[in-house]
Amino acid sequence: MFGRSYFCGEVTENTVGETVTLKGWVQKRRDLGGLIFVDLRDRTGIVQIVFNPDVSKEALETAERVRNEYVLDIKGKVVARAEGTINENLKTGKVEVLAEEISIINEAKTPPFTIADRTDVSEDIRLKYRYLDMRRPVMFETFKMRHTTTKAIRDFLDSEGFLDVETPILTKSTPEGARDYLVPSRVHPGEFYALPQSPQIFKQLMMVGGFERYYQIARCFRDEDLRADRQPEFTQVDIETSFLSQEDILSLTESMMQKVMKEVKGLDVELPFKRMRYDEAMSRFGSDKPDIRFGLELVDLSEAVKNSGFKVFTAAVAGGGQVKAINVKGAAANYSRKDIDGLTEFVSVYGAKGLAWLKAEEDGLKGPIAKFLSEEVQQSVTSLLNAETGDLLLFVADKKSVVADALGALRLKLGKDLQLIDQNTFSFLWITDWPLLEYAEDEGRYYAAHHPFTMPVREDLHLLEMDPGSVRAQAYDLVLNGYELGGGSLRIFERDIQEKMFKVLGFTKEEAVSQFGFLLEAFEYGTPPHGGIALGLDRMVMLLAGRTNLRDTIAFPKTASASCLLTDAPGEVSQQQLDELHLDLKLPKSGE
Amino acid sequence: MFGRSYFCGEVTENTVGETVTLKGWVQKRRDLGGLIFVDLRDRTGIVQIVFNPDVSKEALETAERVRNEYVLDIKGKVVARAEGTINENLKTGKVEVLAEEISIINEAKTPPFTIADRTDVSEDIRLKYRYLDMRRPVMFETFKMRHTTTKAIRDFLDSEGFLDVETPILTKSTPEGARDYLVPSRVHPGEFYALPQSPQIFKQLMMVGGFERYYQIARCFRDEDLRADRQPEFTQVDIETSFLSQEDILSLTESMMQKVMKEVKGLDVELPFKRMRYDEAMSRFGSDKPDIRFGLELVDLSEAVKNSGFKVFTAAVAGGGQVKAINVKGAAANYSRKDIDGLTEFVSVYGAKGLAWLKAEEDGLKGPIAKFLSEEVQQSVTSLLNAETGDLLLFVADKKSVVADALGALRLKLGKDLQLIDQNTFSFLWITDWPLLEYAEDEGRYYAAHHPFTMPVREDLHLLEMDPGSVRAQAYDLVLNGYELGGGSLRIFERDIQEKMFKVLGFTKEEAVSQFGFLLEAFEYGTPPHGGIALGLDRMVMLLAGRTNLRDTIAFPKTASASCLLTDAPGEVSQQQLDELHLDLKLPKSGE
Repeated sequence: MFGRSYFCGEVTENTVGETVTLKGWVQKRRDLGGLIFVDLRDRTGIVQIVFNPDVSKEALETAERVRNEYVLDIKGKVVARAEGTINENLKTGKVEVLAEEISIINEAKTPPFTIADRTDVSEDIRLKYRYLDMRRPVMFETFKMRHTTTKAIRDFLDSEGFLDVETPILTKSTPEGARDYLVPSRVHPGEFYALPQSPQIFKQLMMVGGFERYYQIARCFRDEDLRADRQPEFTQVDIETSFLSQEDILSLTESMMQKVMKEVKGLDVELPFKRMRYDEAMSRFGSDKPDIRFGLELVDLSEAVKNSGFKVFTAAVAGGGQVKAINVKGAAANYSRKDIDGLTEFVSVYGAKGLAWLKAEEDGLKGPIAKFLSEEVQQSVTSLLNAETGDLLLFVADKKSVVADALGALRLKLGKDLQLIDQNTFSFLWITDWPLLEYAEDEGRYYAAHHPFTMPVREDLHLLEMDPGSVRAQAYDLVLNGYELGGGSLRIFERDIQEKMFKVLGFTKEEAVSQFGFLLEAFEYGTPPHGGIALGLDRMVMLLAGRTNLRDTIAFPKTASASCLLTDAPGEVSQQQLDELHLDLKLPKSGE
Repeated sequence: MFGRSYFCGEVTENTVGETVTLKGWVQKRRDLGGLIFVDLRDRTGIVQIVFNPDVSKEALETAERVRNEYVLDIKGKVVARAEGTINENLKTGKVEVLAEEISIINEAKTPPFTIADRTDVSEDIRLKYRYLDMRRPVMFETFKMRHTTTKAIRDFLDSEGFLDVETPILTKSTPEGARDYLVPSRVHPGEFYALPQSPQIFKQLMMVGGFERYYQIARCFRDEDLRADRQPEFTQVDIETSFLSQEDILSLTESMMQKVMKEVKGLDVELPFKRMRYDEAMSRFGSDKPDIRFGLELVDLSEAVKNSGFKVFTAAVAGGGQVKAINVKGAAANYSRKDIDGLTEFVSVYGAKGLAWLKAEEDGLKGPIAKFLSEEVQQSVTSLLNAETGDLLLFVADKKSVVADALGALRLKLGKDLQLIDQNTFSFLWITDWPLLEYAEDEGRYYAAHHPFTMPVREDLHLLEMDPGSVRAQAYDLVLNGYELGGGSLRIFERDIQEKMFKVLGFTKEEAVSQFGFLLEAFEYGTPPHGGIALGLDRMVMLLAGRTNLRDTIAFPKTASASCLLTDAPGEVSQQQLDELHLDLKLPKSGE
């Protein structure tokens, strides 16, 4: 225990009668009838210290100088509290420590916010004083959980023969993918390293190198325009294996997550995880990462309404789009016209031009569009949506992608608003059978849906040049409670297929060789079939800890503008530093 | 086992009679009397596969196409080898597998070097084809050892209540210390992040935050002029604790290393480790990281020779320098004048202007300088050096630092040349009582011997302004077999002492606040006493694995010019990338 007998949270009724040495921070001081009570806190909890002139007058006098967050060294005797003074909410609430000695190790100014789980101080202040924020028990518990999570993962992978191998942070810039962070080289004027967006190529090269089973809890970097749930640097559980099938990799991942859930949450998760094909997920939930803890599924009505009298519906279907709807069971009475206007506004963010609605009443469907729908169509709609009296039916008619985005988002919003989601459930789901490529209409080119190293389904290989959009990938995503926890794939391990893939992605032969020549060459020296997965650790911890803010899982996170409010990074550097790196600043003119 | 019955190295006599599925690489193919023998290799070892037309003609035909490093899938029956064909050097040497089926999973070009532990190919070729180099068993074993080492460290620290916390890679540039790698910010024009030289400040802030016990296997970066044993990025086992004394931290580290030695090498290391004060190490070994596995200690003769007739000696002592010597026991006969000239040249690299020598013969000391030394001086020298007939005595007379450097290096060289070092011993040593500051004569200023956050010895605090050079630090280094494994210290945790320290280091008040204001402020909010240690993981693995090249412990290392020969990083980037980062290149003119 190195200089203390117990941590504060360990001073329970089992220690009554012992003389203990404790070290910690002052949570609170109260003066009461000539006595001083100090709540002493460390990372394990709080214990009450009593300063009584009958025990030590000197200690009492020192205690008078003590303020919140002072650092103390206390020696005293543990005694049981008197009957009426027991605090059942505290692990240590049945005892207190009668202080015999106190030493003030360090003083403290009044902190800008109280050290307590509940705080209404702005996040900016919490980030600027992160070292105080960390003292809030909920923060420590989150980082402890992060530690326990990675420990469980490491123990599992170690037991399965995986080697933890570090890959470089200073590596090569590759234009495919997100924007790289660059690092100018001093030794090689005009040249740059890039920080890795993932260890993808290195882990594949280790498979070429016969390592067979690799993992790393790897830092990755993306210089993206930040959203609330993105960080410039993030951490992924990065796994790669050789000779394994997709089934093997899914099964391994499931066992790993089962261990994590057991060790971190004490929960037994059933295996195998549920699975859903990408197409089905998009069709039923309008999302490639559906939260399946509740219903409100999307129902395709295109066929039923394509010849109806309602132009919005018929035009959407005629134009290659869809009409889909959600049945919000029993919600008709609770949603006024104004409420529905609010939902219409909500879906407009996702590109939906409108939100049609109907309410199922005893004598049929009611609502502004009812009059455009024949009896027959109404019956079809009622039947397809399983509509009963009191249900609210919400329709979007648009391009397929807009219908999915709008209704998928609306479904999530309604699930939350109507509290349809059991927050204590952890619902894992594999999404499989992804498309290999996505077509970017504005650029007139294909992008890799996962990344350019993903293996196409063998039987689709012949379509790669003729009809790239229809090629399926040997790829899979793991979804937890509607969040993408991670994804992976089998990889291309033959040079000719990789070259074809680069070609489909618009690389010239020269570009492919100049950027990935070393990988193409490696494939020619006896490369085993391989594949893997990468899981987002920050998000995993966020979900396990029941937090909603990714920044609460990262010790020293950055803001949405990629700044560190604590250290004030990034910052200016000296002219000498710039000179050494062969750089000039080219600052935007003010007003630009 | 996911699709294979065993790894190749596991097919021993215990598996005789079983039909097995194996996957691996062709180490060698031999055709012999209508049979084909293939040595199949994976990361666990090699097993012999026999293709016999009586078992499968089809398999034999396929095997004819097989070349070195082809990737195979083999099905066959394990049989005992005939008496005369057993290979005792191989774990699997008592058996072979009669192939029933073979499938060529992937082909391979002839590799640029043979996949074997012994190789005389240049390191540049090995680095360019790192994925082939990794297939050499010795490389895999090194990375497996690295994995086992970090696993042992993590398990130990976890059991001691340490939390594994990740600190930022994108952080703030601090001019003190080595040169930073910089990362231009796109969002903040003209501003830069720096890659951390260590997580020093963040780990201290976590102590302010009450985390109490932190560790991280942390990537660190230094843009230094590279030497053979330096890498631009390296990994350290980074540990910080609160409320612990120096003794506690040393003891913790010893227990950790004891566990590492047991789990990685199967060795029982005795605790506590030996200790030596910095002054003593410099005096006896001329080094702050002495290899104490052998003698050849430096002996101070200054007092004995200061009035001798030999001007080189007397002048050195009179000028404030020293005369020290090593007694190379029994080596007189083996070192010719020419050999000694070689040693003289060797010490000249360390600034020594000469290397005086004497040989102890039956009738006294002989050699060119003998005539300058009186009988009395010769007796003193003989006695102090414990010289006996046949000994070779080597002297350096110079400034203290030159004497230490030259004789320290000479001692190591002789220890190696004369094979005085037991290569199977692991000899740990703490160096304690370091000076806090070093004076840089050329710049006329003090530098922090460890770093600016090191706590001075309390009783020396009053000297910090008057006589900074004499202040001792609460710092310690851990030395293993003459290598600095790492070092640590107790840290300053009071604002006023930290401010004094910055002042001694030449910071103005404004500079201190602009660079470290957040740390100084943090110290005012209840900072506990804290301290820690950082151990170089790459070097630790190098020593454990008995390698001599740091690059062999890093999966994808860089060369002395900080290049990656595999991926060709660093490289040029596009104008668009530069524009986004608000940068212009300012390239040196050719010929510069």
